[in-house]
Amino acid sequence: MGEISESEQENLVSVACQAADLARDITLSYFRQPSLIAENKDESGYDPVTLADKQAELAIRTLLKDKRPNDAILGEEYGETPGTSGLTWVLDPIDGTRGFVSGTPTWGTLISVRDADGPLMGLIDQPYIGERFLGGFGFSELRRGGQVSALSVRPTAALNKAILLSTFPEIGTSTEREIFEKLSNEVQLTRYGMDCYGYALLAAGTVDLVVEAGLNAYDIQAPIAVIQAAGGIVTDWHGNPAHEGGRALAASCTAIHRAALEVLSKIEPAQN
Amino acid sequence: MGEISESEQENLVSVACQAADLARDITLSYFRQPSLIAENKDESGYDPVTLADKQAELAIRTLLKDKRPNDAILGEEYGETPGTSGLTWVLDPIDGTRGFVSGTPTWGTLISVRDADGPLMGLIDQPYIGERFLGGFGFSELRRGGQVSALSVRPTAALNKAILLSTFPEIGTSTEREIFEKLSNEVQLTRYGMDCYGYALLAAGTVDLVVEAGLNAYDIQAPIAVIQAAGGIVTDWHGNPAHEGGRALAASCTAIHRAALEVLSKIEPAQN
Repeated sequence: MGEISESEQENLVSVACQAADLARDITLSYFRQPSLIAENKDESGYDPVTLADKQAELAIRTLLKDKRPNDAILGEEYGETPGTSGLTWVLDPIDGTRGFVSGTPTWGTLISVRDADGPLMGLIDQPYIGERFLGGFGFSELRRGGQVSALSVRPTAALNKAILLSTFPEIGTSTEREIFEKLSNEVQLTRYGMDCYGYALLAAGTVDLVVEAGLNAYDIQAPIAVIQAAGGIVTDWHGNPAHEGGRALAASCTAIHRAALEVLSKIEPAQN
Repeated sequence: MGEISESEQENLVSVACQAADLARDITLSYFRQPSLIAENKDESGYDPVTLADKQAELAIRTLLKDKRPNDAILGEEYGETPGTSGLTWVLDPIDGTRGFVSGTPTWGTLISVRDADGPLMGLIDQPYIGERFLGGFGFSELRRGGQVSALSVRPTAALNKAILLSTFPEIGTSTEREIFEKLSNEVQLTRYGMDCYGYALLAAGTVDLVVEAGLNAYDIQAPIAVIQAAGGIVTDWHGNPAHEGGRALAASCTAIHRAALEVLSKIEPAQN
């Protein structure tokens, strides 16, 4: 597809934010509520987190049908809807469902727009804290409580000064865990449990690496858009594009990316 | 010491909140700032997180000297100051310094008041999210953005339905880690990385267990006050008082506490 005009870029960002606003009202109405805590399944057989996920995705799909009728959609809950524009909206209304059910404000709503080559723009929204991390089309910013600040990764010279995040220490397969632990042994600090919020922190310049495995396309495309716009790098563990999912290595700068790749690329390429 | 009158209880809660307000302004002025991110040490040799910790503790100590001159103080940064009232303020201005330097809003300001028997009242303040979890003297509440809601643990019948939190998977010694992993294998979900915010979530009823080791008295006394006031139980791994630090087992209810104790108490008692 051709260039996207500035006014269309603005429209895409605006629609993404409207979509995140819709999702926020729905997800927050379930977050930390006794019905969620009890994990009751209702007569449809869904638990509350799945209900929140589905309701939020339907709300976003209704908005997109109205505002962006020619775009395709790929959503976690309702799969693929074809389009004709060459653009696809990639949606995960609640990324980090385990964080969501635990009450930790580490889950997020992920919304991005991609073309054939990968993500162009995306956002990570954490509604409980009230933060929206946006990036793409040459800008990146954190919106919070009416304030807007630029996002920027930090330069870090060496792995032994780096902070590494991942969601849980098992990482993925036993081989993936083993190679992750080699990387973990070389960094200054490894922390777990941040879900997609970890990618937002990398874009905000407070950590240097996020490494995960077993991802879906809708888990990683919005983080890629935000991190790249903030100056960072996201690839798989061999330096190839990560936007179709699988293993992800997000790094704050070239030096850290190269050093992490040296450790992680020792693993056999994943069978896709 | 004798009974604490209702008006003195109110005064203690009010002073604790004033202290947390003072700490908040100082800690937030350092949180996610480039000076912190760069981890420069200034001419005093302190890194920014230690500076924030020390400045916040000094501000609280100045307040206490004025408002509660007869009470003793135990602080993480400046040690013990004796008193005559029989009450001791226990302070940790930034609990979770690794979370603080990573930019995760999981650290907190811990303030509590104890007598000879243990904590009477305490608070866990997370200034970035804007949440204050308070408990003691027969009440427990979450204050956020002018809203006040009651805190209450949740009843959970069995370990296989429970969510377990701890700060990092190493836990403590290799023996402590081993026994923790036995417990982790019995629960529904284990998550890491929440620092003191995990205890706040237990009081808020979104998780069932927080298990840690290697704690100091100032790490655990405020969480004990908040969790007990919300209906939960905190002991060491043998069911004994945990307020002097060491190993902590915080549980939402008797059933979960008993079941977790059955696993954890297999460990040799710690040498104090």
